[in-house]
Amino acid sequence: MSQTYNHFNVTFPAPYVAHVEINRPEKLNAFYQDMWLEYAQVFNTLSHSPDVRCIILSGAGPTFTVGLDMKKGSLTFPGSDGARKAWEIKRRLTEFQDCISASEKCEKPVICVLHGFCLGLAIDMACTTDIRISSADAKLSVKEVDIGLAADIGTLSRLPKIVGSLSWVKDVTLSARIFSAEEALRVGFVSAVESDKDAAVKKALEMASLIAAKSPVAVQSTKAIVNWSVDRTVADGLAYTKAWNSAALQTGDIGEAVGATLGKRKARFEKL
Amino acid sequence: MSQTYNHFNVTFPAPYVAHVEINRPEKLNAFYQDMWLEYAQVFNTLSHSPDVRCIILSGAGPTFTVGLDMKKGSLTFPGSDGARKAWEIKRRLTEFQDCISASEKCEKPVICVLHGFCLGLAIDMACTTDIRISSADAKLSVKEVDIGLAADIGTLSRLPKIVGSLSWVKDVTLSARIFSAEEALRVGFVSAVESDKDAAVKKALEMASLIAAKSPVAVQSTKAIVNWSVDRTVADGLAYTKAWNSAALQTGDIGEAVGATLGKRKARFEKL
Amino acid sequence: MSQTYNHFNVTFPAPYVAHVEINRPEKLNAFYQDMWLEYAQVFNTLSHSPDVRCIILSGAGPTFTVGLDMKKGSLTFPGSDGARKAWEIKRRLTEFQDCISASEKCEKPVICVLHGFCLGLAIDMACTTDIRISSADAKLSVKEVDIGLAADIGTLSRLPKIVGSLSWVKDVTLSARIFSAEEALRVGFVSAVESDKDAAVKKALEMASLIAAKSPVAVQSTKAIVNWSVDRTVADGLAYTKAWNSAALQTGDIGEAVGATLGKRKARFEKL
Amino acid sequence: MSQTYNHFNVTFPAPYVAHVEINRPEKLNAFYQDMWLEYAQVFNTLSHSPDVRCIILSGAGPTFTVGLDMKKGSLTFPGSDGARKAWEIKRRLTEFQDCISASEKCEKPVICVLHGFCLGLAIDMACTTDIRISSADAKLSVKEVDIGLAADIGTLSRLPKIVGSLSWVKDVTLSARIFSAEEALRVGFVSAVESDKDAAVKKALEMASLIAAKSPVAVQSTKAIVNWSVDRTVADGLAYTKAWNSAALQTGDIGEAVGATLGKRKARFEKL
Amino acid sequence: MSQTYNHFNVTFPAPYVAHVEINRPEKLNAFYQDMWLEYAQVFNTLSHSPDVRCIILSGAGPTFTVGLDMKKGSLTFPGSDGARKAWEIKRRLTEFQDCISASEKCEKPVICVLHGFCLGLAIDMACTTDIRISSADAKLSVKEVDIGLAADIGTLSRLPKIVGSLSWVKDVTLSARIFSAEEALRVGFVSAVESDKDAAVKKALEMASLIAAKSPVAVQSTKAIVNWSVDRTVADGLAYTKAWNSAALQTGDIGEAVGATLGKRKARFEKL
Amino acid sequence: MSQTYNHFNVTFPAPYVAHVEINRPEKLNAFYQDMWLEYAQVFNTLSHSPDVRCIILSGAGPTFTVGLDMKKGSLTFPGSDGARKAWEIKRRLTEFQDCISASEKCEKPVICVLHGFCLGLAIDMACTTDIRISSADAKLSVKEVDIGLAADIGTLSRLPKIVGSLSWVKDVTLSARIFSAEEALRVGFVSAVESDKDAAVKKALEMASLIAAKSPVAVQSTKAIVNWSVDRTVADGLAYTKAWNSAALQTGDIGEAVGATLGKRKARFEKL
Repeated sequence: MSQTYNHFNVTFPAPYVAHVEINRPEKLNAFYQDMWLEYAQVFNTLSHSPDVRCIILSGAGPTFTVGLDMKKGSLTFPGSDGARKAWEIKRRLTEFQDCISASEKCEKPVICVLHGFCLGLAIDMACTTDIRISSADAKLSVKEVDIGLAADIGTLSRLPKIVGSLSWVKDVTLSARIFSAEEALRVGFVSAVESDKDAAVKKALEMASLIAAKSPVAVQSTKAIVNWSVDRTVADGLAYTKAWNSAALQTGDIGEAVGATLGKRKARFEKL
Repeated sequence: MSQTYNHFNVTFPAPYVAHVEINRPEKLNAFYQDMWLEYAQVFNTLSHSPDVRCIILSGAGPTFTVGLDMKKGSLTFPGSDGARKAWEIKRRLTEFQDCISASEKCEKPVICVLHGFCLGLAIDMACTTDIRISSADAKLSVKEVDIGLAADIGTLSRLPKIVGSLSWVKDVTLSARIFSAEEALRVGFVSAVESDKDAAVKKALEMASLIAAKSPVAVQSTKAIVNWSVDRTVADGLAYTKAWNSAALQTGDIGEAVGATLGKRKARFEKL
Repeated sequence: MSQTYNHFNVTFPAPYVAHVEINRPEKLNAFYQDMWLEYAQVFNTLSHSPDVRCIILSGAGPTFTVGLDMKKGSLTFPGSDGARKAWEIKRRLTEFQDCISASEKCEKPVICVLHGFCLGLAIDMACTTDIRISSADAKLSVKEVDIGLAADIGTLSRLPKIVGSLSWVKDVTLSARIFSAEEALRVGFVSAVESDKDAAVKKALEMASLIAAKSPVAVQSTKAIVNWSVDRTVADGLAYTKAWNSAALQTGDIGEAVGATLGKRKARFEKL
Repeated sequence: MSQTYNHFNVTFPAPYVAHVEINRPEKLNAFYQDMWLEYAQVFNTLSHSPDVRCIILSGAGPTFTVGLDMKKGSLTFPGSDGARKAWEIKRRLTEFQDCISASEKCEKPVICVLHGFCLGLAIDMACTTDIRISSADAKLSVKEVDIGLAADIGTLSRLPKIVGSLSWVKDVTLSARIFSAEEALRVGFVSAVESDKDAAVKKALEMASLIAAKSPVAVQSTKAIVNWSVDRTVADGLAYTKAWNSAALQTGDIGEAVGATLGKRKARFEKL
Repeated sequence: MSQTYNHFNVTFPAPYVAHVEINRPEKLNAFYQDMWLEYAQVFNTLSHSPDVRCIILSGAGPTFTVGLDMKKGSLTFPGSDGARKAWEIKRRLTEFQDCISASEKCEKPVICVLHGFCLGLAIDMACTTDIRISSADAKLSVKEVDIGLAADIGTLSRLPKIVGSLSWVKDVTLSARIFSAEEALRVGFVSAVESDKDAAVKKALEMASLIAAKSPVAVQSTKAIVNWSVDRTVADGLAYTKAWNSAALQTGDIGEAVGATLGKRKARFEKL
Repeated sequence: MSQTYNHFNVTFPAPYVAHVEINRPEKLNAFYQDMWLEYAQVFNTLSHSPDVRCIILSGAGPTFTVGLDMKKGSLTFPGSDGARKAWEIKRRLTEFQDCISASEKCEKPVICVLHGFCLGLAIDMACTTDIRISSADAKLSVKEVDIGLAADIGTLSRLPKIVGSLSWVKDVTLSARIFSAEEALRVGFVSAVESDKDAAVKKALEMASLIAAKSPVAVQSTKAIVNWSVDRTVADGLAYTKAWNSAALQTGDIGEAVGATLGKRKARFEKL
């Protein structure tokens, strides 16, 4: 079973697990506009599919993605004056940001496997996912300042909330230097490093299978509430949790989960 | 000197230091409604006691707590329709969240000693305290998804602000897997690990004694301002600090502290 | 080339790089009011200088700073009653906070080199900079509670957003204990440790030179957007990024940066 | 049917309608500590009573309340220095603010009838209610500056969000001048004015009866969502509405309400 | 010139002015899912059209809209338990809210003409527009509580920020009572009332023509900045204004506007 | 007694009352850079003067101000590309916004008397003051869109929080139409209208004298807390009020105010 996209392979390697592969390996998975439009389509579809409970994201070939395909895009903008050029830029950035945010808005958890070169847009994308793991060989960079611009598809807004050292965030965003998987683990950008890409994908599949075996109500509520809370006060986090869980606790999954634990059997949860 | 509670031992092992022990070891310190109501009572009392300047929280017996006592509670709710059930749930969650938040609202710093099993509610409680230390044997888990629900007593709202890796937060909240004291230290959930429970309690007592020997105005102001600032912009943090300290700096403790340092003697601060 | 200040040396050790040294080594660089007023003046000037693209901050002599000079200031305040004293305190804190915030508001990235004793105000200052590196010998402390007060020049508001362990933040702010460079690295307060002060300054100079060689539009936009985003929701971060970059992308630096990369030559960017 | 309190009459003049009267007319309903503690008790009880769907608040006798009873309280505070006095003040204000906020936190809508003198605390209280109506004779004042203090039980925080002229808010809070019912209507502080107290209470009873006849799920959800939204962005308001209504829409009240409308009969809703 | 939609007439009655009419008069312009999907399409298209600078929204026939078509929708939801029903509800509300928000996100100002019955969804829609004017005969109601639910398409989140009396907001949202155009004007919900629908549309056309004759950069920037600022602190409003205007001020429109004023001629602005 | 400025008359018409007059009547009080720099200087000085407790702002001559002096400024900006021009704009707007905000940051209440033409910057300035009154002849306009730009010195950020009809805010900011004093009163932009300028200044002087006769601790605390609360949640407003008042209540002014009231004498408050 698989779904057909121009630039993505979507497969289903385990029950309730989808695997999204960026599929333009001959160009090191470099992105252009068609691709991010399709990226949104992929994640919006999986978000509502009752057959999917956890998603893995990686790149076809050795490289995750080298970021923007500079040859297929352009960083000059039409407009008869600076204000009109700015308007065009804002519209394009809106579309681009919205597309990449699809993996964040996706109701299901997304596990990102970083491997090979992970440059520029690669980091923007990784920041929208829930769990990041890396192969030991990964070469990561917030590359944007090296082409004369500030990262604008989300890295600068999300990275400070994802890792635990603002000094490190400024270091890598201002210098555009390559950092390793090991460094990414040390600062908390990724939460696991595996020996190579295959091992990292295998690990991601194990994690995804574990998560997919649990109550989808519980799992998807957890993603929703954590994402809400990151951005808000503890008081607003607690209030939203109450509102959300006043419905979510009315689920048969609790009885099924408790029953399965007591009966030492595998729980089976209804589709969501 | 001690205070009598049904489910908590409260002792005073050093000057100005209180030690709160969850005391239902025969049930691995599992919680039910009476206990969290009493938990709030304990911390509200200590919060205003002039004889207390720092508090230690741990569990009687080898286990901190295994979380909710599933046999004493119920996860089904009365109500003739889904909205009415939801209302009942919201009221219960309000009471439950408010009780556990008592250790966060407590004016005095709370040092949490994690040991043995620390499951579910254990993490919610630990997240409300100020300093977390662990014994090497601790087995920790954000267990809630395993019983079909999203953690709703505060872990999902507080954990992302407490540790420095959102990838790790999602990993442990979505998978409900056990993590070790060492892992907790690496991601910053705890700030120290000791060889066993006794050593961890001893360490906590040393820290508590050190803190209790300082100006209570300075210590309690620090807790209040940090807790405010975590949730707000730097500008709002600075403004609140000014408002707060415009009163707090009018204290004799400054003279006493400076005098004691110059005189190489122990400072003595008035009660607060 | 250098600029003359009473308490700061400002030199220009590399193209577009300024080095600000706190220069009162005979008093271990202890601060008093004149000094923080001048501190603001130094950073405000550099902020708008087209010849500066990155700034290093360190102390003359072995010690960064021991904080406030208790002999030149006073922690008693005029006023006929508690409210009037409070008013005076608020005015002084406003001036003091505003001056120290100058290194945060400064448009150019600031790299702070911590060395020797870094006590009290030293941490407030370091928290306003972008990248923190340390010499191995540094002895750091959020010292304020030891003189009877809560840190009020920014540490309590900024530190929780800078490092990844709130347990550690509470530990060091409540205990005022000395912590080492190594510990500072582990929790993410600094992002690099060098063997001694000279090595740390050398490292800072390398980093500053690297950053100063890049597009100033890209670098300064990155600082501005990260600082905005730390304090706000992801959605507000993305919106501000769009507004900011709708102008910033209209720069010749992009063409120059891309052209230089393709031509394997050093990019030259116009002044900003 | 009525409930007995020392300082409040609570009666039930219509189905599902409670009427709370401040009952110390011999002292013009002036408040002291016992009274605000009881005030919280009254509203907390009504909040969860299934027999109450709307609440009216007024004063016994011609005057609503003249505010604090200066003879029963004191505005001097114990404490050996300014910081310790401040601590005592903060604890008292916390208790006082929390008590008066009970009418805001109350799940059921509260209609406040303002009449006669409505001074100081009267305005703090009125600001916590949902709908304010006034008798034509009411004399209102944010009186606090006249006794040397800024209103601290909520008027300064709530009034700017309740009325539509910040110029007027500053006028009445800075001058402490008396304003009339007519002026209160013009700026939107009250939404109706009746000829005298009896007419105002009668009007309130009609409004309360109308509201009490509707679905309590719909009514109480509306209060909860408006109160949340006033303080937050539209986006956060919409998100909370979705979380809340995902449970609230699962109610039989919708069918009952629609059925009653179509059948031209009075709807009957289950208790909540 | 006009565009063809199933349920909307879109005409262009004056240069740069579009008129959107809800076009299901035989059902009093009642909405169902197809219609709000198309509503979003209409406004998204106009938002980016360079030929449109201001938009009028009204209803075909005497009635603006009576809100939801209860016969074409359903307020029961699929799902095997309360949590799964809630999930379905959240997805539907997300789509519904997003569609109606299209008139708020629309870059061009929208003038809403309220006339005849304006019930339920009518108010949600009106709240997303920029300027509201009414015919004298309009009968308005936040009708939702009368069918057993809290308004969830935006009225409860937006109305408190649109008008200047929270007491009135609670009155009309809790009672669902009809209010008149005159009352709407008094509380600021609408900013003008005309004698009948024709006069109101004529007035809207005059206003739209006036706005459409001005610099589109200035007009659309104003809408964007006001909408941002309503929800945020003054400081964040000022910061965003600076970021936005740093591009917007680079427009030829300023010279054209000033030149036209001095030359007493009509200004001509380039498309945007 | 008066202070000498180039473009402002500062007089002291009553005890503790300062009157600031914009003094360039030959140019209808049009502003250029020197003037707003001086404006900040005037208000910063008055803010800390113990002899001032309330301030009146008006214009010399019949006109308040017609806004920017287009001949003394320029709306073209240096810079070799759009990004560099934008940088220059941001720096200028920062300085300009900061200067005009001085009347908002001023510790003392400011009463703005609007009269004659009040265009563009006039509204920005009025929005920073506390109480606005108008002469009947005033002609007001948010004029900026008529010169091709969005108001950027604060009107768009502050006006929606100052008045109670967002429809009206959009109307006047998008159309740049003149509105009258009467209309300004109706929407709450001003809180009083007097027959002519002299009567309005007289009224302002009465109000200022009334406010200046009260406790400066109470008055200035009220301004500070209202300004904080407008921008924040009720909960944050209440918390800040507690922190602020924990110092402010330690004032002799309370005893003096109460004593004077009981003794039916005029209160005398110490300087602040």
